[in-house]
Amino acid sequence: MATEKKPYVIGLDLGGTNSVFGIVDAEGNVVATTSVKTRGHGPVEQYVKDCVEALQSTIAEVGGIEQIQGMGIGAPNGNYYTNCIEYAPNLPWDQENIPLGKLFSEALGLPVAMTNDANAAAIGEMTYGAARGMKNFIMITLGTGVGSGIVCDGKMVYGSDGLAGELGHVRVEPHKGRECGCGRTGCLETYCSATGVARTAREIIETSDTPTILRDIPIDQIESKDVSIAASKGDEVAKSIMDFTGRLLGRACADFACFNSPEAFIFFGGLTKAGDLIMDPIKKGYEENILKCYAGKAQMLISQLDDAKAAVLGASALGWEA
Amino acid sequence: MATEKKPYVIGLDLGGTNSVFGIVDAEGNVVATTSVKTRGHGPVEQYVKDCVEALQSTIAEVGGIEQIQGMGIGAPNGNYYTNCIEYAPNLPWDQENIPLGKLFSEALGLPVAMTNDANAAAIGEMTYGAARGMKNFIMITLGTGVGSGIVCDGKMVYGSDGLAGELGHVRVEPHKGRECGCGRTGCLETYCSATGVARTAREIIETSDTPTILRDIPIDQIESKDVSIAASKGDEVAKSIMDFTGRLLGRACADFACFNSPEAFIFFGGLTKAGDLIMDPIKKGYEENILKCYAGKAQMLISQLDDAKAAVLGASALGWEA
Repeated sequence: MATEKKPYVIGLDLGGTNSVFGIVDAEGNVVATTSVKTRGHGPVEQYVKDCVEALQSTIAEVGGIEQIQGMGIGAPNGNYYTNCIEYAPNLPWDQENIPLGKLFSEALGLPVAMTNDANAAAIGEMTYGAARGMKNFIMITLGTGVGSGIVCDGKMVYGSDGLAGELGHVRVEPHKGRECGCGRTGCLETYCSATGVARTAREIIETSDTPTILRDIPIDQIESKDVSIAASKGDEVAKSIMDFTGRLLGRACADFACFNSPEAFIFFGGLTKAGDLIMDPIKKGYEENILKCYAGKAQMLISQLDDAKAAVLGASALGWEA
Repeated sequence: MATEKKPYVIGLDLGGTNSVFGIVDAEGNVVATTSVKTRGHGPVEQYVKDCVEALQSTIAEVGGIEQIQGMGIGAPNGNYYTNCIEYAPNLPWDQENIPLGKLFSEALGLPVAMTNDANAAAIGEMTYGAARGMKNFIMITLGTGVGSGIVCDGKMVYGSDGLAGELGHVRVEPHKGRECGCGRTGCLETYCSATGVARTAREIIETSDTPTILRDIPIDQIESKDVSIAASKGDEVAKSIMDFTGRLLGRACADFACFNSPEAFIFFGGLTKAGDLIMDPIKKGYEENILKCYAGKAQMLISQLDDAKAAVLGASALGWEA
């Protein structure tokens, strides 16, 4: 007899500051949430204990642990194969492999699966969002960095070690590119992340005297959001920054298409709030650079998941297959 | 009751000049072969009829068609999903979609599967060669062009349209790169194919007067093979060409690793005959450019399939899953 799926999963979006839990149903409704500060618990075992305690009343709200199918965790450097967090510089635990999957599984008596944030976003999009029904797509997350989750034939690409899908570190400028936090130069992320957009703005402001409302902001405080807002007000310099960023991202995606010929690229994160101001240049950059046999095939889409809930939803989606 | 596999498969390596058939057993032994000129048959239906006629005695050698599990075809622009050859400029049939899989299947009464040459090579390597037991690897074929076959989690990546895996057209020089036959510039194939290597040789000879035995060859007749041979004799210019080619290919592979974090890259084709003269620079270029989390993980291997048989073997391997 096939075991029937239980009605809910737990998702954990583990960030450097907050650990946000959501209980989610099969339609992607977040029916209950709770959150815990990520720091200040001491060792990771105590963190898990405190989380589970905080979860008790939330679990009770949906009828108890018997109603829950599994748990999914989206965490920086979360590895699907090992169920561990590997080398995460922004988390409070000073150890190489944090066996968070195992700890939560033991504490809750549930199957637990883990992956990194961008993969979780892709799984969320596939389960509840713009990629429903898609078998081949690439998720690009535009945040402080650029992350990615790649789906081939309906399955997440985890690679030989669980760490596949680091498209933010493909080198789009192989010569004299910008320095990247990874220690190399020219990575996509140095141009198309929120940090990259702010960097472009500062470069342009410093090397030209074209008027722009961005000059009203102290130069070291300019953020990606400011550029979006200025562009939406018609500021020409800000629009040219969006154009540069989108064209470059589109060109990179044209290279990415050579891998798995995706039916869509799905973009997620703050930069997508700029709407057509960023999506039009992305599409243009893609069309200008795409290999003929792929031309016109991939859709360029913005994530359909609500920003505030996307990370928890993505993590929770992993719980169904845990 | 599970159906038992029959002992043989037929492989067809369909080239612009010759169509080479092999009957192959489960261990990868080519037990019988025959070949037919690809041109001169008129319409494709007649070509298939002539091939099947030529195959009769070969099939009889292994005990008749009842001994054969299926057939695999490796063909330029062969599409796994449609079982058709799409837009193949070097083949004699002037039509967009050549339903070769269907035609052979009807004529032989066997299941037939088709893919392109580089994918067939990857499947061959996975079934009989250096990638046996591997779940995640990238095959790079270095011929007139640069082809690729990508395997994730034990499965060929065909993408949304059957045309995935064109890594030869990833643009390794996004600005002022060499013109490519695809109509764009800077593609990997313009540097690292046999044609690309000869192009590098001509560029160096024309723009310097460094002595090299390559000058003994009329400049427009220099081939990749000549560069390999000169390098193996210690010619410094030829060695520097191998170094440039390998380093660039290694750098490109470092970007490719960001996709599926492969356990190996497997190189196939004439250029690999140069052995360490090309493999050492590939490894160096890879190490110099690889993202830290992938460093030291992927092996750089030369195909283990015999050149003369590799294409037929690769095609035949597809026959097992047809």
